[in-house]
Amino acid sequence: MATIRDVSKIAGVSVATVSRTISKPDKVSAKTRKIVEAAIIETDYKPDILARNFRTRKSSTIVVLVPDIANPFFSRVIRGIEQTAQGLGYAVLLGDTQGDRNREITYANMVKTSQADGIIQLDSHIPFENENGPYVPIVNICDCVRGTDIPTIEIDNALAAEKMTEYLISLGHKSIAIITGPVDATITQDRLRGYKKALKKAKIDFVPENISVGDYSLLSGTTSSHDLMQNTHPPSAIFCMNDEMAIGAITQLKKMGLRIPEDISVAGFDDISFAEYYDPPLTTVSQPAEEFGSKAMQTLYNIINKNDLIQKHTFLDFEIIIRKSTGPFKYET
Amino acid sequence: MATIRDVSKIAGVSVATVSRTISKPDKVSAKTRKIVEAAIIETDYKPDILARNFRTRKSSTIVVLVPDIANPFFSRVIRGIEQTAQGLGYAVLLGDTQGDRNREITYANMVKTSQADGIIQLDSHIPFENENGPYVPIVNICDCVRGTDIPTIEIDNALAAEKMTEYLISLGHKSIAIITGPVDATITQDRLRGYKKALKKAKIDFVPENISVGDYSLLSGTTSSHDLMQNTHPPSAIFCMNDEMAIGAITQLKKMGLRIPEDISVAGFDDISFAEYYDPPLTTVSQPAEEFGSKAMQTLYNIINKNDLIQKHTFLDFEIIIRKSTGPFKYET
Repeated sequence: MATIRDVSKIAGVSVATVSRTISKPDKVSAKTRKIVEAAIIETDYKPDILARNFRTRKSSTIVVLVPDIANPFFSRVIRGIEQTAQGLGYAVLLGDTQGDRNREITYANMVKTSQADGIIQLDSHIPFENENGPYVPIVNICDCVRGTDIPTIEIDNALAAEKMTEYLISLGHKSIAIITGPVDATITQDRLRGYKKALKKAKIDFVPENISVGDYSLLSGTTSSHDLMQNTHPPSAIFCMNDEMAIGAITQLKKMGLRIPEDISVAGFDDISFAEYYDPPLTTVSQPAEEFGSKAMQTLYNIINKNDLIQKHTFLDFEIIIRKSTGPFKYET
Repeated sequence: MATIRDVSKIAGVSVATVSRTISKPDKVSAKTRKIVEAAIIETDYKPDILARNFRTRKSSTIVVLVPDIANPFFSRVIRGIEQTAQGLGYAVLLGDTQGDRNREITYANMVKTSQADGIIQLDSHIPFENENGPYVPIVNICDCVRGTDIPTIEIDNALAAEKMTEYLISLGHKSIAIITGPVDATITQDRLRGYKKALKKAKIDFVPENISVGDYSLLSGTTSSHDLMQNTHPPSAIFCMNDEMAIGAITQLKKMGLRIPEDISVAGFDDISFAEYYDPPLTTVSQPAEEFGSKAMQTLYNIINKNDLIQKHTFLDFEIIIRKSTGPFKYET
């Protein structure tokens, strides 16, 4: 069986360099890493990482808790995490939680049992039974818990919803419905607050029946928009808390014989890749998905390695993207 | 520090049951598992899984190599893997390879170093430098390498493409273009073979300029369809090797003033969730994404645990889904 000395000989570097390449790949040059990796493969040397992990109690693995891996916004976030993790020498364990707290806790416990070094949580839950439990490196992104010490990375969701609502008001719309995400999510509450603030500033009464609760799926956009059109005063614009629900809503409204945006405006949230390719192309709020991922991984790395660079609450930029699914309100003639 | 005895006392079960719950969660009832997990959390007992992994040389982790995690078809496959893995007591490590062979090898080496027990590869590459290298548990799904002993799970891609092409021919189309995936992929070659076979059976000449190579992105559907319409004899139907390229193509063709399907038919492949919600709803080949994932995980589990149930080559069912993006060929008047 090959030893670290065999690798060192073939690679033409010191044993210490081989060891460092294995344990801290981010601390050696890409060139050295390549040479050493080639030598490891050539000699079929097994660095016995489990033995090393056992000694150091570090797994060089992080866990990502994703509410729904089939959501195209989250897959871009995961890609950002993955790419940064690879550069830092970390592997990414994926937990598709479906928002289930037991699943979150099961995955989070992998850190307590030293199978992983830290957690990136994409949902607004703390994945521990006891919030005051033992300290676990964690970063909460996208949809963030309030009032804890856990570092968060998010956009200003209230402001984004306020800006989109203001834009719809500027087009002459007064009856603006909103299709939300799950009611207990922080982003749902933040965005609802922004929506209400914009209405209030424009002296438009808030109408409770203009709110329909969705679950971020295409189907819930369909059913919610159908319900909203049965209101005593149907809306002339619908703002959806993600692009899938906006696409579901447009599909349903077209089926009902309505033209978008001539008869009704629809706006989304996230700017997934399909938004631009939809018919009509979707007006939406663009979020920096990959940046969410890379910033989260960098922050978690700093926490795990006890660096002093940790920013508690980071806000990333958003952008209102105006395309063709929204247009001026037209009085009925 | 809590011991396994503390957990056993609080849970009211034997030490052996606690141990079995930790090491083989699939071998105890859901009820027992819940009670033991609650006791582990209450006592803050650390089962020291790294120490156990070190002794047994099992990590209870598998690696999934995904060419593109942002592809909605793959995220459904990953969900299938994840759900079955959880039931079997395995964690899923995710490698977003972007088709890069060095990245594939880096991830695959995690098995050689005992950080993972096996690999599920979604792309038609063998992720080792040396194909005759040491035995590593691996299952190859969706896009499969030919002529190896590696267990594969796929649909009959040649037959699926043949059936879709036959359907387009049955609508009266004779000039049928095809937008492919990367040329070196097995599924591209299989599907091209099926397409050519259907043309030959209908005595329609194969025209090389009717082939355009894409990369599965929305954008490549746009550029490929634009190019195809510059042909001396532009196609009256375009068959795309995934739904994203079909959506990109429809967007582009509409921009050029063409009506779908009155002026030109477009078909896709995969039946991603957006296909049904597109305008017009997409005719496509439905693939059982979640089943790919669950079958792959079950097969890998059998390989890792040396069960005798391993089927070398599995074919799953596909279905031609006819929606509104395809219609009869109309002679110009």
